[in-house]
Amino acid sequence: MNPEHTRLLKQLVNEHEVAALGTLHEGAPFVSMVPYAVSADGTDILCHVSGMASHTKDMRASPRVCLLVIASEEPGAPPQGRARVSLPGTARFVDEDSPDFEAFRRAYLDRFPAAEELFGFPDFSLVAIRPESGRFVAGFAQAFTLSAEALATALASPR
Amino acid sequence: MNPEHTRLLKQLVNEHEVAALGTLHEGAPFVSMVPYAVSADGTDILCHVSGMASHTKDMRASPRVCLLVIASEEPGAPPQGRARVSLPGTARFVDEDSPDFEAFRRAYLDRFPAAEELFGFPDFSLVAIRPESGRFVAGFAQAFTLSAEALATALASPR
Repeated sequence: MNPEHTRLLKQLVNEHEVAALGTLHEGAPFVSMVPYAVSADGTDILCHVSGMASHTKDMRASPRVCLLVIASEEPGAPPQGRARVSLPGTARFVDEDSPDFEAFRRAYLDRFPAAEELFGFPDFSLVAIRPESGRFVAGFAQAFTLSAEALATALASPR
Repeated sequence: MNPEHTRLLKQLVNEHEVAALGTLHEGAPFVSMVPYAVSADGTDILCHVSGMASHTKDMRASPRVCLLVIASEEPGAPPQGRARVSLPGTARFVDEDSPDFEAFRRAYLDRFPAAEELFGFPDFSLVAIRPESGRFVAGFAQAFTLSAEALATALASPR
């Protein structure tokens, strides 16, 4: 992947606010929508989920998940050429006493300031999804498989 | 669900061209992007997939899948309020000698005329995903669970 593709991947993940989240639900895949942020070091995708939501129960039962972020539609452009990235990985519930909690909370609130009051609700949980790899399709015939390390480097915040 | 919600659901599915497709991949969920059309009677979501694609192999191995269609971003609107519909169901490969093939092919090409040449490629398959239910979130605090029948009625083409 050249620097231009790295830039496109970073832009794709940073410019969008919601991902499709695939969870295992009673043995079958289920896909729902989830707002997300990225940890400063690029290693984790952060979500803040309600205990009432089906995907939250799914992730507690089975932590293997997958996120997909798709570029916005461009009128007239063929759908198969839409940039997207699939991020299969493992979900971890990050409790308030975890050493990561405060930094992850801050990264999430930097993106979604309005979520602050939800952090006071006992029913909500911060979840960090750590991709084990990435499958990035930048456009027609431009597909790349990325290691977790390459992905984190591409997604890390500028220092 | 009132008629306005039915209209919103139909609009959501008709106005967008790609869905997130959740498949079971080596025991874990995987989510990829897939262009889709709807069968005239509203019962099936139609995709045309390459045999080389990971999701195609996944669906051959395990037909339980889930589609998610998300409304486009509206700048300034909170992400949690985005309309979306999750459609868990079963994928069926529709061969050329199936009685459904011609109607499904026509419905797909009505939406994606440029895909016509791909129907000549032996590597591509028409797949009909039949939802067993639908989970439609029209906006904040407006979530509906739909039966397969209610969904098909909402998604059927006008006669």
